[in-house]
Amino acid sequence: MSLVRAATPSEVIAVKKYNNGPLSREQVGQFVDGAAKDSWSDAQLGAMLMAIWLNGMNAQETFDLAELMTESGIILDLSGVEGIKVDKHSCGGVGDYTSLVIAALVSSYGLIVPMMSGRGLGHTGGTLDTLEAIPGYSVDLTIEQINQQLNSIGLGIFGPTGKVAPADKKLYGMRDVTHTVDSIPLIAASIMSKKLAEGLAAGQDGLVLNVTCGSGAFMPDFENAKKLAETMATIARNAGLNVSYVISSMDQPLGNYIGNALAVKQVLRVLNGKTEGFENYVDMVIELSAHMLVHGGKYKASELAAAKVDLRKRLGTDKVSTKFMEMVIAQGGDERLMDDPDGILPSAKHFDELVVPQSGFIHKMEPTPIGMAVVELRGGRKQDGDKLDYGTGVVLTEKRIGDEVEAGETWATIHANDEAHIGPARERLESALVVGDEQVDAPQLILES
Amino acid sequence: MSLVRAATPSEVIAVKKYNNGPLSREQVGQFVDGAAKDSWSDAQLGAMLMAIWLNGMNAQETFDLAELMTESGIILDLSGVEGIKVDKHSCGGVGDYTSLVIAALVSSYGLIVPMMSGRGLGHTGGTLDTLEAIPGYSVDLTIEQINQQLNSIGLGIFGPTGKVAPADKKLYGMRDVTHTVDSIPLIAASIMSKKLAEGLAAGQDGLVLNVTCGSGAFMPDFENAKKLAETMATIARNAGLNVSYVISSMDQPLGNYIGNALAVKQVLRVLNGKTEGFENYVDMVIELSAHMLVHGGKYKASELAAAKVDLRKRLGTDKVSTKFMEMVIAQGGDERLMDDPDGILPSAKHFDELVVPQSGFIHKMEPTPIGMAVVELRGGRKQDGDKLDYGTGVVLTEKRIGDEVEAGETWATIHANDEAHIGPARERLESALVVGDEQVDAPQLILES
Repeated sequence: MSLVRAATPSEVIAVKKYNNGPLSREQVGQFVDGAAKDSWSDAQLGAMLMAIWLNGMNAQETFDLAELMTESGIILDLSGVEGIKVDKHSCGGVGDYTSLVIAALVSSYGLIVPMMSGRGLGHTGGTLDTLEAIPGYSVDLTIEQINQQLNSIGLGIFGPTGKVAPADKKLYGMRDVTHTVDSIPLIAASIMSKKLAEGLAAGQDGLVLNVTCGSGAFMPDFENAKKLAETMATIARNAGLNVSYVISSMDQPLGNYIGNALAVKQVLRVLNGKTEGFENYVDMVIELSAHMLVHGGKYKASELAAAKVDLRKRLGTDKVSTKFMEMVIAQGGDERLMDDPDGILPSAKHFDELVVPQSGFIHKMEPTPIGMAVVELRGGRKQDGDKLDYGTGVVLTEKRIGDEVEAGETWATIHANDEAHIGPARERLESALVVGDEQVDAPQLILES
Repeated sequence: MSLVRAATPSEVIAVKKYNNGPLSREQVGQFVDGAAKDSWSDAQLGAMLMAIWLNGMNAQETFDLAELMTESGIILDLSGVEGIKVDKHSCGGVGDYTSLVIAALVSSYGLIVPMMSGRGLGHTGGTLDTLEAIPGYSVDLTIEQINQQLNSIGLGIFGPTGKVAPADKKLYGMRDVTHTVDSIPLIAASIMSKKLAEGLAAGQDGLVLNVTCGSGAFMPDFENAKKLAETMATIARNAGLNVSYVISSMDQPLGNYIGNALAVKQVLRVLNGKTEGFENYVDMVIELSAHMLVHGGKYKASELAAAKVDLRKRLGTDKVSTKFMEMVIAQGGDERLMDDPDGILPSAKHFDELVVPQSGFIHKMEPTPIGMAVVELRGGRKQDGDKLDYGTGVVLTEKRIGDEVEAGETWATIHANDEAHIGPARERLESALVVGDEQVDAPQLILES
């Protein structure tokens, strides 16, 4: 028993409320314990979240919050894995299923890519959901299986092996209802608390962060996206990782095949070198992969351009597609996938095309309603735990903001299994596209790298 | 069903969090309903309390909060009572049992004094507890009994007749643990929500507010006490009442007999005209009573001084003591009380004196440890619902801050029923008294009136 009396929750709240300097690590720890072990009342947690929202947190507090939330749950033990591990984190968006290609591409250079991923909710898809569209693929691996798979083939995309950051889970649910989501330190600590649970090793392993901004992203503008990226990178750096970030725009969907089996189909095409029409998606894959090669020591930081050239050359070769299929097979997926995707992957029964209502230039192609159309088709979740229909989704043509279109040309195709879902999906999609007379520039994808 | 979608709790919180202008009455109402009917989660209530703490509330919001919290519970219906009703509210303190004398004194002028009072917690005593020291006295009256008693004798001191301001009860408990007590709008709305439940009539009845400052008070300094008084007065004025306030210091105990039966004994002495040594207590009684006479139309606001002269003359006469005994008897108390207080009232078995440790001048006589000494003796509550030992307490001599004292002279006497409580009570009391060599001024009691 300590002779110093522990501070009460109320006393810890008072420090933040009066903005009396930063919270000590011990005080942050009391707050985290309060959330993870229910030792603070919900009212106390809500009041503290609001005080943090209003007064902010400095870098040390934010790091302590992230790390202590990580320590509130299970941390993947990858100490048995040889070699340098590199990973990416994306803030997510619509058509953002780059992880599947990146894992294969980067691991083909001999780096270890251990991707502990999540599921989708609302308009953003989840990597685990996409992979589960592959018959037989299991995302539920034990710690032993993960270590063994990474040692033998060098990559894996899997789900959490236990309760990851339960303190974050509790606080995340509360932030949603207390209007305290939009706090950069709270967002950064929440994301990083889950990423730090992946067992990347301090002083050795690396991480690239992809923060998006725009109408389909967490952060509406570049300035806030940059603040979030800096805050997240500082946490990772304080945790001893090699880290960098890429800020990109999410003003329109990244990939063209939006859904679960549909996303796998685009992944397979890209792995087979058919990248035409998928330029934005491929650019993002190359950008993030290049950062990972740098973190893994394959290129110097000053050689990012050379890394990209090499990556572009390698994408579409057997080296990469073989890596992908090694992972699919290791995790129980159907080995015929690459040769017969249409025969193996679930598909839809009903199709419906959306046409451009007037000739002109695409001014907007909003990601959120397009993602919500996929939710209407049961390819995404309205709420946690919803079952998915893996074969459904939306396929976009290659036309994007700034491109010229003609009235009547198809811009999107609905893939549905229940005809009743087509109407609601159409309605969402129709609200996503804005065509105007004036010519507009194509938006820049990579805003900072 | 309204066509306008009701705002979610999160949306209402957002208005206050962004400080986007005042909350509408409807939005305040959603918050109050959220507390009273559990339609907001505790996390949402905690977050909202913190946002209010940080961004404040204007006069209209504060009034809406008070009034809507009042309306969340039972409101005493005094419409059957003839005549002008006047009451006082005191923020409480140690030795502040003026209500018992004031009720009798003011009602002797023909005004109606309906005092719905509360119980004590921690270092401050409660008027209901003091009265319950009188054998037989019941504070639990029905609405019919209250109306009938006020019509026949013109005064009563009783407890709530049902759930008063349940929204305030819920929020008050939360403020304590979320460190959001020290917010002037929240304090003012909380106090006034209970006072407005007393059924004082708009456009007719009156209220004097006594706000204390100093080490034993809610508000440490005069400036904040004045802000609180102004905020409370504005609520009462918006509710249509005649209102005024008195700001006084609570740097030392007000009365000398601190406990429950002990307080009644001092009250009886004062009613019998034995006011020597009780000067501060009597000054406060006269001050607040004068304001009540003005509100009741017995004097003009400009005649406050004349009212005080008349009140001082009347105090100690049969007119007043008879009023007091009418109330005691009407509420079931022992009719022999005035004639044989020592025979009727509970008393203590063990006594212990505290002496002044060194000659000099009293620099401090802290109310809080003195109040806590009474709690140690079971004359006050550590927590809600604790049973009281009505005969115990502490009796102070007339010596106060600024007075000269000699080493060895008694300044306080413990009245205990359990010898084991004497040690802890002594310890509290010893920490209350500071004697120094330098002469200091006696502090002013009434700071603004």
